[in-house]
Amino acid sequence: MSSPSIAERVLAGEIRAAARLMRDLDDRLPEAEATLRTLFPRTGRAYVVGLTGAPGAGKSSLTDRLIGHYRRLGKTVGVIAVDPTSPFSGGAILGDRIRMQDHALDEGVFIRSLGTRGHLGGLSRSTSDLVQVMDAMGKDVILVETVGVGQDEIEVATLAHTVVVVAVPGLGDDVQAIKAGVLEIADVFAVNKADREGADRTVRDLQTMLELRRTVMGLGPVPADHDAAHRFTGGPVPPQGPAQAPWEPPIVRTVAVRDEGVAELIAAVDAHRAHLEATGGRREREVARARAAFVAVLRERLMAGALARLEAEKGRLDAVAERIAARSADPYQLAEELAALLRA
Amino acid sequence: MSSPSIAERVLAGEIRAAARLMRDLDDRLPEAEATLRTLFPRTGRAYVVGLTGAPGAGKSSLTDRLIGHYRRLGKTVGVIAVDPTSPFSGGAILGDRIRMQDHALDEGVFIRSLGTRGHLGGLSRSTSDLVQVMDAMGKDVILVETVGVGQDEIEVATLAHTVVVVAVPGLGDDVQAIKAGVLEIADVFAVNKADREGADRTVRDLQTMLELRRTVMGLGPVPADHDAAHRFTGGPVPPQGPAQAPWEPPIVRTVAVRDEGVAELIAAVDAHRAHLEATGGRREREVARARAAFVAVLRERLMAGALARLEAEKGRLDAVAERIAARSADPYQLAEELAALLRA
Repeated sequence: MSSPSIAERVLAGEIRAAARLMRDLDDRLPEAEATLRTLFPRTGRAYVVGLTGAPGAGKSSLTDRLIGHYRRLGKTVGVIAVDPTSPFSGGAILGDRIRMQDHALDEGVFIRSLGTRGHLGGLSRSTSDLVQVMDAMGKDVILVETVGVGQDEIEVATLAHTVVVVAVPGLGDDVQAIKAGVLEIADVFAVNKADREGADRTVRDLQTMLELRRTVMGLGPVPADHDAAHRFTGGPVPPQGPAQAPWEPPIVRTVAVRDEGVAELIAAVDAHRAHLEATGGRREREVARARAAFVAVLRERLMAGALARLEAEKGRLDAVAERIAARSADPYQLAEELAALLRA
Repeated sequence: MSSPSIAERVLAGEIRAAARLMRDLDDRLPEAEATLRTLFPRTGRAYVVGLTGAPGAGKSSLTDRLIGHYRRLGKTVGVIAVDPTSPFSGGAILGDRIRMQDHALDEGVFIRSLGTRGHLGGLSRSTSDLVQVMDAMGKDVILVETVGVGQDEIEVATLAHTVVVVAVPGLGDDVQAIKAGVLEIADVFAVNKADREGADRTVRDLQTMLELRRTVMGLGPVPADHDAAHRFTGGPVPPQGPAQAPWEPPIVRTVAVRDEGVAELIAAVDAHRAHLEATGGRREREVARARAAFVAVLRERLMAGALARLEAEKGRLDAVAERIAARSADPYQLAEELAALLRA
């Protein structure tokens, strides 16, 4: 009687096996990748929710509360914290009060953080791998928490079915994470710390931006029923127009530390999910995610191969760097030569 | 008489030529890259200062003040804002009060922002290109402003000679950008908005972290003269021990909006520069930067080649993504096959 393989143990939802697989993937062990391949056909069931927003918006507190609510709904939850400042990732040195211990003994919750170790393949590859493993474990919902700036933000948009952008009043006028790019990726807005002064203004600003976008896109004014979603203050999220109509991101007020508005946030995510399923959008997002995963793996493979060749055939990478630093060669030409060599 | 080439005009510091070259580089025009190659041997003179920190730390206000101070010192300045929320990059929708108009008519200042357009090569390639162009233009100092999280933060560390980490009191206990990774890259700490309540605590926290690091690294307690730098409150930055001793990041208090502490911040950057030059560290940083630039260009070249092949030889990338999304193939195997094909 042979003992079950790592893949079998992951599929059975075994946390220790999953943690080990993730560690081995992070170390780029070939057998870990072989396991991931075995698991791949068994993935695609989990619903992936991205949470993004500026540091200080309270994403981690909100994630903490979402875990609790999803658990009470009987769902298993995976959490991936990409934000290096997140308490989930252990990156916060100054005290935080999130009591992750509440979930530590719950077998239905699996939390992993992802540092920025700067692999060749970038962050995307690693996050995507963790999502696949949690998906294979049978987690119903996977929460991916990233800080809402730059590359990470683009990444969460390619990984998630629903992207929740967390805004917050009073972070300072000049820094609010409410910027053009965020509108492109937000499926739901959470205005967290909504008991703070300035919450009304933050909600109004978001409404103005959404209306502006509608105008720019030639969609005309927000219809009355969408408007209700914008002013959402509790109760069920109102259904949105015809299924084929573009999705209007609802704005949900939350106070994570008091557990307020969290059920409404989940309702808004569910409404978006229903919209995606009604319009074929879920399938579209799966394809976009598959494409991103493929490109991330390909990039890593090519780079690994190229750098290995560089060591073997063209002398050490260090020597190349020395020549470039001395301006006796330029990086563009050297890269072109190497790429041509690899292509030949 | 032929008109001067773009390269000649850039070398003459002509802003319109540089702006056009940057735009063409961003669009990946081959002739723009040829121009960059021509310019490359003429680069390496500029001193590159990275500013990083959480949104809300006041990096842009500080950058604005640094421009003014460097200009009064007779230095020409280039600014690259990578932070998409920076007012320099036009990304901030909520009002900010930075009066960039002050510099708009100054020929000695050249400001460019960099969106996250998500090129194949990632952000690194583009930022590195802009630094090269500004360097070729003859800018004495190049300020690179990035938000202090994730990949961008790693990037600024590879690009800059001196990295200034901007901290700020009262951004919320759980979100301060003072985290483990930041210690690795900080050459100078600026505690901005130092007139705010909590500034002393922020400075103390930084001191504690620096001392903790010394202990972990087995360097023993901070010597008295280093300690002076830590408690730096004005006047010249004290010289630091023997040249070969590890650099101790000084902590400088600033109030950017009132232009306080900015001369001291520049003095701290200068002290670090002197340290680098005394220890050979500047050369080391140049080599690290060269290596990063080469790897970024190589990554882009390989990806561009691979994706072109993919379209031509293996059918459309969309079809690959469809197969992966349907779980009838896995991204690892497909990427491996393609990478092998390209290597063959």
